[in-house]
Amino acid sequence: MSKRIGNQTVSLSVPPKISSRAAIVGPKEGKGPLGLYFDYIFEEELWGEKSWEKAESKLVKEIFSLLERKMEKSLGEINYLLAGDLMNQCLASNFGLRESNIPVFGVFGACSTMAETMGLGAMLVDGGFADNVACLTSSHFCTAEKQFRYPLELGNQRTPSAQWTVTGGGGVILSNKGAGIEIQTVTTGKIVDMGIKDANNMGAAMAPAAADTICAHFMDTGFPVEKYDLIITGDLGSIGNEICGELLRENGIDTNGRLNDCGLLIYDLDDQDVHSGGSGCGCSASVVAAYILREMEKGTYKNVLFAGTGALLNQLSVQQGETIPCISHVVSLNTK
Amino acid sequence: MSKRIGNQTVSLSVPPKISSRAAIVGPKEGKGPLGLYFDYIFEEELWGEKSWEKAESKLVKEIFSLLERKMEKSLGEINYLLAGDLMNQCLASNFGLRESNIPVFGVFGACSTMAETMGLGAMLVDGGFADNVACLTSSHFCTAEKQFRYPLELGNQRTPSAQWTVTGGGGVILSNKGAGIEIQTVTTGKIVDMGIKDANNMGAAMAPAAADTICAHFMDTGFPVEKYDLIITGDLGSIGNEICGELLRENGIDTNGRLNDCGLLIYDLDDQDVHSGGSGCGCSASVVAAYILREMEKGTYKNVLFAGTGALLNQLSVQQGETIPCISHVVSLNTK
Repeated sequence: MSKRIGNQTVSLSVPPKISSRAAIVGPKEGKGPLGLYFDYIFEEELWGEKSWEKAESKLVKEIFSLLERKMEKSLGEINYLLAGDLMNQCLASNFGLRESNIPVFGVFGACSTMAETMGLGAMLVDGGFADNVACLTSSHFCTAEKQFRYPLELGNQRTPSAQWTVTGGGGVILSNKGAGIEIQTVTTGKIVDMGIKDANNMGAAMAPAAADTICAHFMDTGFPVEKYDLIITGDLGSIGNEICGELLRENGIDTNGRLNDCGLLIYDLDDQDVHSGGSGCGCSASVVAAYILREMEKGTYKNVLFAGTGALLNQLSVQQGETIPCISHVVSLNTK
Repeated sequence: MSKRIGNQTVSLSVPPKISSRAAIVGPKEGKGPLGLYFDYIFEEELWGEKSWEKAESKLVKEIFSLLERKMEKSLGEINYLLAGDLMNQCLASNFGLRESNIPVFGVFGACSTMAETMGLGAMLVDGGFADNVACLTSSHFCTAEKQFRYPLELGNQRTPSAQWTVTGGGGVILSNKGAGIEIQTVTTGKIVDMGIKDANNMGAAMAPAAADTICAHFMDTGFPVEKYDLIITGDLGSIGNEICGELLRENGIDTNGRLNDCGLLIYDLDDQDVHSGGSGCGCSASVVAAYILREMEKGTYKNVLFAGTGALLNQLSVQQGETIPCISHVVSLNTK
């Protein structure tokens, strides 16, 4: 029986519930406006490890450990882990989960990874392939700067349009039983490349991809925009957020104050010197897992549309003068 | 309704059919023993592009174009693309598919990527989320050597245990209608790290992961080893193939001549100077899509167990003295 509605969306017949959520962040993120929401804040970027890479792997390991501990035992076993990250060959996820003893699907969607794992995970649960799946991702300012840009020791200046990679991560467990916030629809993104080449302005590059999949969601489902109390992208930053709002309006979707971005929420943009806001897989992962879902539990929001956004570039593609292909995956988070 | 059998395996209720398959390889692979099976062989590693990276992206694009053209139009639309590759941030897949205008799930399983996309894709079709999904991957000797090892211009010597990254790729389309070879079970791998640190002996590192998931398949399903005419790993090479056979025997699975490896089939190991055999995402992808499935169509094999194997390392993890975590994903290919 087909669960497809429209070109890019599936409607889940038994919507998976979010049965556990966890987020851990680094010192800068802990000092930001959402500090009180995170499960744990570590005090320096190395977190007691010998390298930033090992610190990011530890982050993944500890998030998964928290997720497991916070899940009700009566829900049964975790059947799959879905994880990926920004490091070359998704190192943080693969090293962080190597002792898990649970089947792993590695995914890569750059900063859209959290939404991608939640979309795929929801389908695996709804399809009867799993009782519980864990979806998680991470990023680390130092591993990302070193890999994508310049050695940190250089102290390079950043352009005003640049975003700050979040040191942190988050995850959820999706279950076929229990109560809680559920995922009712999954709208999967196409790759969108509008010809932008500036790797220091990824918000502008990603905004068209976000608008594309959000539009597809409303077109496929026929839902009015008012269904959602919040449409949260992750992570466009201030420039991308503005462009995304404009593109949605041009397509007849007036978000009317409902549109926000994880990269704008995690830092105090006036005081924390992060220019356009936060970015990195761990930004939307930690903001959604710690803050958005908590506010939904409290009743602040009833229905939220989460659009993860990723820039599918690498260091070589920038050096070779290529444009930046982007993607956005959308999942709906619903209070029953 | 749960489709789970055992800890790591799912049994598909309406097994997806392989409705299209395509493989393209480079010059060295074209001169190998399977040369006649591939859809297209390009004559030099750059394939008319300005960089090896662009050549690998072109490879992905052309494989997808072939897959689309070879699929029967009556089967309907392709709903999802599942793809990933070895390049940092899966560049070849993301650039190669950026004009596809089809929703994309990026996956990363190193050289197990082909089996991973087929496993996930089969579940998306069987679960009613898609009518057709395309699963594809690639690798390129020059992009891989440059990224993981040394500049090619150095002409470094290779150790006898090293494998040769295949320039090539392949893919399949899985469909909920039509006739043809089907995927009946998917056994998803756990990460296995036996402490091997030698990045020039990846076959030895990956063999325990392959044996682990193959054992899980037989334990979960209760099938006798005789059900399969061939158990094909991809890509362990000669050293890994031997270790895998031994590990299976120790676990009570006597493959009795049934165990072979894509990395041993694609090159002439005596004449083509590839040391332990082929490797890279494109090795098992092209060998399975072009050769294994063709031989199944001809009736040479009735049932084949395909175990994709991946080494989840990156250049930094080797430099930091880390061991090599590995994974293997298993799908069964069955003639109805």
